[in-house]
Amino acid sequence: MSVYQATASAPVNIACIKYWGKRDTKLILPTNSSLSVTLDQDHLRSTTTSRADPSFEKDRLWLNGQEEEIKEGGRLATCIKEVKRLRREVEEKNPNEPKLSTYAVHIASKNNFPTAAGLASSASGFAALVSSLAALYALPASPSQLSLIARQGSGSACRSLFGGYVAWEMGSSPDGSDSLAIEVAPQSHWPDIHALICVVSDDKKGTSSTSGMQRTVETSTLLQHRIKHVVPERMKAIKEAILVRDFDSFARITMQDSNQFHAVALDTDPPIFYMNDVSRSIIALIVEYNRVSIENGGKIKAAYTYDAGPNAVIYAPKENLKEIISLIVKYFPQAEPFKDPFGLFGAQGVGSGAVVPGFNEAVAKPFPVGAVKGLIHSKVGDGPRVLSPQEALLGANGLPKDLA
Amino acid sequence: MSVYQATASAPVNIACIKYWGKRDTKLILPTNSSLSVTLDQDHLRSTTTSRADPSFEKDRLWLNGQEEEIKEGGRLATCIKEVKRLRREVEEKNPNEPKLSTYAVHIASKNNFPTAAGLASSASGFAALVSSLAALYALPASPSQLSLIARQGSGSACRSLFGGYVAWEMGSSPDGSDSLAIEVAPQSHWPDIHALICVVSDDKKGTSSTSGMQRTVETSTLLQHRIKHVVPERMKAIKEAILVRDFDSFARITMQDSNQFHAVALDTDPPIFYMNDVSRSIIALIVEYNRVSIENGGKIKAAYTYDAGPNAVIYAPKENLKEIISLIVKYFPQAEPFKDPFGLFGAQGVGSGAVVPGFNEAVAKPFPVGAVKGLIHSKVGDGPRVLSPQEALLGANGLPKDLA
Repeated sequence: MSVYQATASAPVNIACIKYWGKRDTKLILPTNSSLSVTLDQDHLRSTTTSRADPSFEKDRLWLNGQEEEIKEGGRLATCIKEVKRLRREVEEKNPNEPKLSTYAVHIASKNNFPTAAGLASSASGFAALVSSLAALYALPASPSQLSLIARQGSGSACRSLFGGYVAWEMGSSPDGSDSLAIEVAPQSHWPDIHALICVVSDDKKGTSSTSGMQRTVETSTLLQHRIKHVVPERMKAIKEAILVRDFDSFARITMQDSNQFHAVALDTDPPIFYMNDVSRSIIALIVEYNRVSIENGGKIKAAYTYDAGPNAVIYAPKENLKEIISLIVKYFPQAEPFKDPFGLFGAQGVGSGAVVPGFNEAVAKPFPVGAVKGLIHSKVGDGPRVLSPQEALLGANGLPKDLA
Repeated sequence: MSVYQATASAPVNIACIKYWGKRDTKLILPTNSSLSVTLDQDHLRSTTTSRADPSFEKDRLWLNGQEEEIKEGGRLATCIKEVKRLRREVEEKNPNEPKLSTYAVHIASKNNFPTAAGLASSASGFAALVSSLAALYALPASPSQLSLIARQGSGSACRSLFGGYVAWEMGSSPDGSDSLAIEVAPQSHWPDIHALICVVSDDKKGTSSTSGMQRTVETSTLLQHRIKHVVPERMKAIKEAILVRDFDSFARITMQDSNQFHAVALDTDPPIFYMNDVSRSIIALIVEYNRVSIENGGKIKAAYTYDAGPNAVIYAPKENLKEIISLIVKYFPQAEPFKDPFGLFGAQGVGSGAVVPGFNEAVAKPFPVGAVKGLIHSKVGDGPRVLSPQEALLGANGLPKDLA
């Protein structure tokens, strides 16, 4: 008897033009388009194995070995239902195909980064889920078509269906059929954009992005102006910057849009804060780092961006990463030695950090160890990968190998 | 020989609708109208003595005993020149009046609050300057007329020419002749609005409001929407709330506008932050305090507002101040016993603070002593006062009594 099983991994993406606000909360249709960079799966990824079998009694899902309920009408159930619907179309066209759409599925998923890191795993998680089911069902669907389904799991998940530089076009159709991800440029177009994730410790629980963004839609008197007048121009400009590999423009727009997203969060009633004093200090360091470069006739060398939490993501061309990591480590001493995946620092390591000549060290005060809990160095990466059977997360019995 | 001298004091004001942005930086004409509450001079005030004498060689000014240069064409020089111009009109109409406008002036000013408190002293300072000169010159000018002059010293100073609830109407004339303060309601109309100033410690030097607001005008893509569409509605609504003593609406608008001011500061490039983690925590406490009240069928009990710095000002009806001070002290223990100018706590003092029943204590974490350096309890107060000769700051020799 055949085993119908597939395993796929999907990447994390970090937005440069931020998604904040839904016009349809059920279909997850956004109030504005957004754009992100896909990060390398060698550093951060979700992996998912899906199996269809006539012996399974119901659809089941395990996340990091822990079974999660698939609530009827919920986001997980919607995604599974939609992928099965596409499988059914395949079966109807090709009567010889096995009727996998009629079988229940077992799905096991895991992230290679700790939940405590405060990195949103829903984007890579839903992208991996949809990718593994699409591989299981051998769907003839493009990444954009699959992004329509991943979007209904978690909005920003749609952007993780592509590598490189990805736009989520908001679309205009009430049924959401044109609210999908497209590739602006592949990883290979501009491969030397690196990302440094600064994992920031936070004492407070932030407002969830799902509830936070709708509170902004309901109460901010600035959001509609952002949606109608600011984002469309920025989307156009940042796509152009990517196509001509203009880091200066890319960085300016990325920082401005991060700031504006947090501005409309603050314009919410009651206000929403995601950045804390550590986040603010990292901004001050990057602003000063860029100021020194510009004063010396150079260009912007780094761009910060913040999602719905205090973590900073710093985008920069590869050649600047050594300076940037040295700068961050100087103000935010690390408990663990910096994991140096690109071998920037050699055997002696990053040490206690350094600033570039001319840097005004008074723009921020040094923080104690632990204020930035960790640093993850990554770069622009590729889209979902179908993995070999050796990497499957489900055992022969159809249950997760790492059952908690 | 006659001594021509007058002493006046003027109050601090704290805005509910924020002034942020100039359309004319020389005349200090704002991009939007604003509205403030004048605080009681018994707690916070600037006092100024002005003397005109034919023996004086030039205009001179001392602030807290330290001589300050009166730069030609600067803000101080402009204010002095404008008041002298009004005096000249008086002299031209009444030839018997002494020609004080032809004499140089000596001016001594002091604040009764430390500069380190981070409270803007320019508003009360310029209001006291203009008030003392107007008294010296026996000008037949209304507070609104004097506010035109104080505005050219420091924009928000124009609002300190009145007690109670004061609007600065932005006006439309290019010469600034209609950009002045008006009284929305006197102190006596709604005398039981109290204010608790939480003086917050800050490690960083903030961006000065003068340079910060112009950077916002130049770079924020949200500011124009605020100016054109949000503030005019809020000005109308908060004036109505004041006239009918509707604290609920007053508080909502005050908090929303504080948040929006900081939102446009954050939407500036590079971004401007004035609030820090302590400021954010005070917001969280007030939001929770109001939530408990509303959940129990009550109304909003307190409103926070933040100017261009981390200090919180909490407005509330008098009957809530005991709860509010207890709340703040619980999370922000004080090194010094709370100065209790209204005798709320009796002999046993505020102790270690308390929360109201039903309060979710997890909304903020307690901070160490010193995070809030001090608490100043005040209330809505009256406008500038002309003081007796006994309170003069200049000695018989025409120099400050407390010369540094």
